[in-house]
Amino acid sequence: MDRLHRPLPRSLLDQLQEIVGPDGVVADAEGVERQTRTCLPFDTLASAAVYPRSVQEVQAVVRAAAVADVPVWPVSTGKNFGYGERTAVYDAGITMVLERMNRILHVDEKLAYAVIEPGVTYRQLNDHLKQTGSRLWADTAGSTQYASVLGNALDKGRGLTPMADHFGALCGMDVVLADGSVLETGGGPAGRNEVRHTYKWGVGPVLDGLFAQSNLGIVVRAGIWLMPAPEVFDFAAFEYKASPDRLGAFIDDLRELVMCRALRSHPHLANDFAMMCILAQYPHEMLDGRKHLSDEAAARWRQQHGVARWTFGCGVYGSKDEVRYQKRMIRRVLGRYGMVQFIGAAVRDDWYGALVRRLAPPINRLLGKSPEFTDVMLPAINLFRGIPTDEFVRQAYFKSHKSKPKTDVDPARDGCGLVWIGPVVPFESGHVMKVLALTKTIFDRHEFDFFVEVCVESARSVIVLVGVFYDRHDPTDAARARAWYDEARETYVEHGYPPYRATVMSMTGAMDANPPAKALLATLKHAVDPRNLIAPGRYGTPAR
Amino acid sequence: MDRLHRPLPRSLLDQLQEIVGPDGVVADAEGVERQTRTCLPFDTLASAAVYPRSVQEVQAVVRAAAVADVPVWPVSTGKNFGYGERTAVYDAGITMVLERMNRILHVDEKLAYAVIEPGVTYRQLNDHLKQTGSRLWADTAGSTQYASVLGNALDKGRGLTPMADHFGALCGMDVVLADGSVLETGGGPAGRNEVRHTYKWGVGPVLDGLFAQSNLGIVVRAGIWLMPAPEVFDFAAFEYKASPDRLGAFIDDLRELVMCRALRSHPHLANDFAMMCILAQYPHEMLDGRKHLSDEAAARWRQQHGVARWTFGCGVYGSKDEVRYQKRMIRRVLGRYGMVQFIGAAVRDDWYGALVRRLAPPINRLLGKSPEFTDVMLPAINLFRGIPTDEFVRQAYFKSHKSKPKTDVDPARDGCGLVWIGPVVPFESGHVMKVLALTKTIFDRHEFDFFVEVCVESARSVIVLVGVFYDRHDPTDAARARAWYDEARETYVEHGYPPYRATVMSMTGAMDANPPAKALLATLKHAVDPRNLIAPGRYGTPAR
Repeated sequence: MDRLHRPLPRSLLDQLQEIVGPDGVVADAEGVERQTRTCLPFDTLASAAVYPRSVQEVQAVVRAAAVADVPVWPVSTGKNFGYGERTAVYDAGITMVLERMNRILHVDEKLAYAVIEPGVTYRQLNDHLKQTGSRLWADTAGSTQYASVLGNALDKGRGLTPMADHFGALCGMDVVLADGSVLETGGGPAGRNEVRHTYKWGVGPVLDGLFAQSNLGIVVRAGIWLMPAPEVFDFAAFEYKASPDRLGAFIDDLRELVMCRALRSHPHLANDFAMMCILAQYPHEMLDGRKHLSDEAAARWRQQHGVARWTFGCGVYGSKDEVRYQKRMIRRVLGRYGMVQFIGAAVRDDWYGALVRRLAPPINRLLGKSPEFTDVMLPAINLFRGIPTDEFVRQAYFKSHKSKPKTDVDPARDGCGLVWIGPVVPFESGHVMKVLALTKTIFDRHEFDFFVEVCVESARSVIVLVGVFYDRHDPTDAARARAWYDEARETYVEHGYPPYRATVMSMTGAMDANPPAKALLATLKHAVDPRNLIAPGRYGTPAR
Repeated sequence: MDRLHRPLPRSLLDQLQEIVGPDGVVADAEGVERQTRTCLPFDTLASAAVYPRSVQEVQAVVRAAAVADVPVWPVSTGKNFGYGERTAVYDAGITMVLERMNRILHVDEKLAYAVIEPGVTYRQLNDHLKQTGSRLWADTAGSTQYASVLGNALDKGRGLTPMADHFGALCGMDVVLADGSVLETGGGPAGRNEVRHTYKWGVGPVLDGLFAQSNLGIVVRAGIWLMPAPEVFDFAAFEYKASPDRLGAFIDDLRELVMCRALRSHPHLANDFAMMCILAQYPHEMLDGRKHLSDEAAARWRQQHGVARWTFGCGVYGSKDEVRYQKRMIRRVLGRYGMVQFIGAAVRDDWYGALVRRLAPPINRLLGKSPEFTDVMLPAINLFRGIPTDEFVRQAYFKSHKSKPKTDVDPARDGCGLVWIGPVVPFESGHVMKVLALTKTIFDRHEFDFFVEVCVESARSVIVLVGVFYDRHDPTDAARARAWYDEARETYVEHGYPPYRATVMSMTGAMDANPPAKALLATLKHAVDPRNLIAPGRYGTPAR
C-alpha cells in the first residue's frame, strides 16, 4: 500500500482518544490500511479509524470532528465485501466503525421484532434467538455471518427468507445528526412512543428512508421485524434442464409463483459459473492462454461437477396446508423446466434428518454431482432459515488464491479482488432476457467469466446480480475489473435498470442520471449537514 | 358562514384563470365556502380554490403563487371526511384541488400495478379494472367511493384487503416542488427508469416517505401496487359473545391469527355503537334529557337490532388449500369467543350466490337481526374485495340529520359534524385494553357515546379508531366535540400512542411531542420551500 497517509491533527487525535479510549483509535498508516482494506479495484486511505462504544461517544466524535472540520465516514461493521467495505470515497478523514456498539437491546416475542445496535452481527442475533429459546427467526445476508444486521439493511442488502427485504423490515431509528443531536424517527412522542418499532409510517413525513444509502445521519439503533418460525419448513432444489430458449417463459412463470405466494422466499437463480465459484477453485489450467474460459472449457468444467446451466433453491414456509399448496405449485411450474427435489428434511434434528444427510452423498454421486455439492447443501438450506454461514463468501478466494480458507474468512483483509453490481429489473421475461444479453456482452468484451444470479426481489422486480473476481495485486487485472464495472454501470443506467447498490468507486456519480433528485438531495444534505461533515460524496451528494 | 373572505390580488386571480381556464377557479366567498366545507368543529376560509388539469398547470400555479407570495394548500379530492377535507389550517390563500387530474395512465397486468393521477377515485379505478377485464383488484378506503386513491395513500389512510396499507403500496412518485420543478423519486435515471413502479427503495436515500402527510411537495402522479384476484375469496362474519373480561385474550389470539397469516385482511373490530351508526338513526328519544345514552338505553337499543358488543368481518383469500387453512384457524380461534359464519358466497355471481342472498333475510331474522343488518351485508363483504361504496360514510348523517341520503352522499357539504382520531397501539392486550379504558373515560367525561373500532394495521399494531358525531350548527355542541378531540389527542400522545393522522385542528402541533423531529422537519421544509409556500403548518411544520 503506497498511498500517502495524512495524519490527524494532534489535538483532534488526543480528543478522539479521550472520547473512545486509547484502544478505540487506530491512527498509524499501517494500522489504518489494515483496518480499511477493500476488495475493489480502488484505494483511499483514511487518517484514522475510531470505534465508539455508545451513542454518546458517536455524538462526541461527530462534534470533535466538526470543530476540526474533518469528515467522518461511518460504517456499521464494513463487511460488505465487493461493495466498498470501510473505504471512503476520499483520502484522509476519520472512518467510524460501529462494531463495538453491539448490544441487542430488546427482543419482543409477541410482536416479533428486535431493537439492536449497528455492531450486532447476523451470527450474534441468530445465536441470541437460539439461546433464549425464541420462537423468532431473523433473516440473514448470504455473505458473511459477521456482517452487521443494520448495516446491511441500511445499504438495502437482501436475504433469502420471506423477510429478505432488510430495509423494509426496519422500523424506528435513533440517528445522530451532523450537529451531534439525536433524532428518534417516527414523529411520535420522543422517549415514550409505544409504537416506534411496530408501526412503520409514524406521524408526518416518513423520515426512515432518508437514512438508507445515505449520509444524512448516523443510525445508532433501530428496530427490525422478525418472523415467527413457521409450522413447517421445507426446501426445494431446482436445476434448469430445458432448452435455453425457454428461459424467458420460465422467468414469467417464476414471477407468477411469487405473485400468488406459492413462493414466499427470495431465491437466487444462479448460472453455472456462479455455482462453480462455490464448488471449486478457478481452473487456470483450462484457460489455454485466454483471460477467461472458452464456452467449451466452461461446459467441460461444469460437467465435471454435475452443475446445471441454472440452479436455484427456495424455502417453503407455512402451515401444513399452505406448504402442501406451495409444494404442489412449485413442482407443477418448475417441473416444466427441470428437476425439483424437496430436501428440507436434511436440516431436521431427528432420525429422518440424519437419514437424509446419510443418503445425500450417494444420491448426489448417482446424479453426477461432485462431493463439494453435498458439502454446501446444508449451509444453503440453512440460509433459508436465516442461519448465517461463511460458506458462500469463501468464493471470493476462488480465483486469486490457491484455496479457500476453512475458517477466519475475510476477503478484504486477505487481498481478494471482487466487485459486485446488481441492476434492478422488472420481473418480466423481456426485460430480464435483455439485461442478461447486455450483461453477457459486457463480460465478453472485458474477457471475464459470466457470473450472474437472478435474485427475486419481489413479485415485481428482480436484481440481476453480477460480479467479477480478479487479482488485486495485478494492476492490469485491477484496471480491467474497473473498466468492466464502469461499462456495466453505464449500460444498466442508460437502459433504465439502476443498480440497487453503489460501490465507493461509483458513489459520487450515483445520482448523475437524475439531476432533479441529485439537486434535491444536495439541498437536503446542505440543510442538515451544512459543513458536509458526514460521509461527503456518499450516493451522489456533493463531494467536499 | 360568517368568516371574512379575503380575495386574491386581481393580478394573481387573472393569472390563475389564464393558467387553469375560467372554469378552473372559484374565487367568490360563497363559492369558496361551499367548495371547502369541513365536518370538523373548525373553520377557515380560503381566498380561492383552483382546479388544475395537468402537471404543467400545477407548476404554473405554484410559480404564480410564489411570485405573489400567497400560500397553496393542495388536496387530492379532499374527501377525507372528519379529518379536514379541503380546509387549510389558516385563512386566505389558495386551495388547490387536484380532482381534474384524474387519468389512469397505465395498468400493468403482469407486474400488478397502476400509475395514476391524484384525482382518480376508488370508484373510477375499480370500474376501470372491471371494464378492462383486469385480473387485478385495487383496495379501497371504507369511506366514500369518490375519495382519491393517492390522497388517501399519502395521508396514510387504510383499507381492508391484504393491500390495506395504502401508503405502503405506493411506488414511485412525480412531485412538483415549491420552486415549480418536477422530481421523479427513486433516484434512478430520470425519464427512463424501468423499475420506478416495481422497486420501492430506489437509489440513495428513499424520498417517497417525505411526501406522505407532508407539505414538502405536491404529488401529481404515482404508482400503486395492486393484487391479483385470489383463486378463492370468502368472508367471515364474527360476533363477540364471550364475557367482557376475555376481550384481552381475544386481542392476543387475534394478533396470532394475523402473525401466522391465517388472517390476511385488515378487519375492524367495531363496538356496538359503531355498528348502530351504520344500522340506525340516533335514538334522540332514548336520551331522557342526557347528552349521551345511558348504558341501559344503549343496551336496549343494541338489542332491538340484534347487535353484539363487538362485531367484525374479515376477508379470506388464497388458493383452495390456503383458504381451507385460514378458515379452519379462524373458526378454531374466533369460535372460542363467539359466533363465526362464512358468508362470502353471498357476493358470488352464480346460483349459489343468489340462493345465499335469498336466504340471508330470513336467517338474519331468526338470529334476531334487524332488516338493516341484511342491507349492509353485501356492501360490507364487497369492501373486502376492494369494491367501494357510499353505504358506510352515510353514518355521518345519523345523529345530525333526520335520515341518511340514499345517493349523493357528501357529509361536508351537508353540514354533518364528524371528527375522527386514531391512536396507533401495539397489537397486544395490555396496550389495547389500556387505550380502550382511557378512551371510554374521555367519552364519558365529554358526554359522547362511545364509538370505537379496533383496526388491524399489521401483525404488530392496531389503530384504535374513535370518533364523535355532533351538531355542527350548535356552537355548544361543536365546542364539546372540539374539547373531546383535544383531550383525546393529548391523552394518547401523553401515553405514547400517537394518532396515525392529524386533523387540520391539531396539525400545527403534530410534532410538538418530538422536538428533534420537529426541528429537523422545519430545517427540511425551509431548505426545499424557503418561502413556506406549500401548505404552511401542515403536520407540525412552521406556520407562516
